[in-house]
Amino acid sequence: MNPDFVAVDWGSTNRRVFHVAADGSVIRRMVDDRGLRAVSDFPTEIARLREETGALALLLAGTVGSNRGWVEVPYVPAPARLATVAAGVLRAGDGVFIVPGVNVPDPVRPDIMRGEEVQLLGALALGLIGDGLVCLPGTHSKWVVVDDGAIDSFRTVMTGDIFAALQSASILSDLLVDAPACDAVFALGVDHGLEASDLTAELFTTRARVLTAGMSRADAASRISGLLIGADVRIGLGHRRADVVPLIGAPALCELFALALQRAGRESVVIDGETAFVAGACAIMKEILA
Amino acid sequence: MNPDFVAVDWGSTNRRVFHVAADGSVIRRMVDDRGLRAVSDFPTEIARLREETGALALLLAGTVGSNRGWVEVPYVPAPARLATVAAGVLRAGDGVFIVPGVNVPDPVRPDIMRGEEVQLLGALALGLIGDGLVCLPGTHSKWVVVDDGAIDSFRTVMTGDIFAALQSASILSDLLVDAPACDAVFALGVDHGLEASDLTAELFTTRARVLTAGMSRADAASRISGLLIGADVRIGLGHRRADVVPLIGAPALCELFALALQRAGRESVVIDGETAFVAGACAIMKEILA
Repeated sequence: MNPDFVAVDWGSTNRRVFHVAADGSVIRRMVDDRGLRAVSDFPTEIARLREETGALALLLAGTVGSNRGWVEVPYVPAPARLATVAAGVLRAGDGVFIVPGVNVPDPVRPDIMRGEEVQLLGALALGLIGDGLVCLPGTHSKWVVVDDGAIDSFRTVMTGDIFAALQSASILSDLLVDAPACDAVFALGVDHGLEASDLTAELFTTRARVLTAGMSRADAASRISGLLIGADVRIGLGHRRADVVPLIGAPALCELFALALQRAGRESVVIDGETAFVAGACAIMKEILA
Repeated sequence: MNPDFVAVDWGSTNRRVFHVAADGSVIRRMVDDRGLRAVSDFPTEIARLREETGALALLLAGTVGSNRGWVEVPYVPAPARLATVAAGVLRAGDGVFIVPGVNVPDPVRPDIMRGEEVQLLGALALGLIGDGLVCLPGTHSKWVVVDDGAIDSFRTVMTGDIFAALQSASILSDLLVDAPACDAVFALGVDHGLEASDLTAELFTTRARVLTAGMSRADAASRISGLLIGADVRIGLGHRRADVVPLIGAPALCELFALALQRAGRESVVIDGETAFVAGACAIMKEILA
């Protein structure tokens, strides 16, 4: 059994800190906006974190280990299982460990993940997923093929990132004020995204619908989200025969992807992303302390 | 023959002002950044413009006539010819005219343009285009079917807008510092965009190529531009049999689209966007003064 430790899912915008007990349960959870963009001095930030959590071991995962983060930890290549990821963990200071990302070393279609590998290893450790296709919706959705208990290959679709970019700096920005609804308008957008491959044109028609056909701004946001998520699911499924696709992530976003999968004739099960992350962190910690 | 007048192509970011002589030649050309985002008081801005150009008639086109501009001028529906557009011109003040945009009143695939109709009417007036497919590359590329001398239908692809949004607010932003080159890397991106329909995933692989396969940032920018323009040309051509596609726009951007069309097995001819705009403004002015 591990001693208590602190697992940190440290992304560009947010930071999630979990004080994890010896039995794997979460004693304390803190979510704040001390993501990479808000932090310049990592040693000071780590010291501050320790004032709050005590001198426990820290396991850091996410973009904190990227070229945009604190220390760049080399990717471990897929296929990657628990032992592969644990072997790539970097010791960045006294009791401070950074999890490596995983890359697909395919010259035709290279890909990278950083943080999601912890969730995947956690869902595997909990027995919530097995071999097959798994989807982790997010800023950068990951569609992962698990084979023989390892992250075998994966594909990233930058759906959430493009949605946010359109929201902050495009002609569609004034239509993207309300959060997308999981409704019939969203579903129509999904259907288009699943069938057609004209995303960069179809997105623009939403502005025409608002200006010349009376669509509301709230519906426009749902439709734009539907088009992007429909395309995401089309790309992620590819020609695969996955009947049931596990979704690992934030429940509200998983709900949108579950509806999209349903429109594509697939079932899904939702696995809470934080639960999976903590379980993965425990599994990695156990491996590196072994 | 028209008297002298001033034609203004007034977009969101830039403003192009042309003092046009009675014979259609440009006496003076001014380009500045007094686009809509920089202007809040239009009457004062118009008065300032007249101090520079004299009390000539002003013909304004572009997003100045949109819901984001000065006065919203209703779209005229396609099919639209010179007379249709001229009939929709709004007199916004003494000697100040605003050109309407054109919309496609199709409930399944509505679309809108504002400003490009002037370039199209100009290219038609100069005899540089006839019936068939025409492309106007830009922030919002327009693929227009001209039939019987009228703007019959069109489709917008928001290529430039998405490129700029990715540049300003996405994980790809630090790869989009250099301007895209019209080179072999760009062409490979185009080829992918022409054939595959996985744009939102393939864009992300560019980051993986830089981080794990040694691609330079300059090449990354060219590849991302190629992927977007390849998709643009694929969508714009659709299943049409256009052997030669006229390109109306800024020469540097037209060069990228010409290469993309060549990769798609099509020829192209480039028509300078400013020349077309001035000719269109003359044709509209003549019609409204008739």
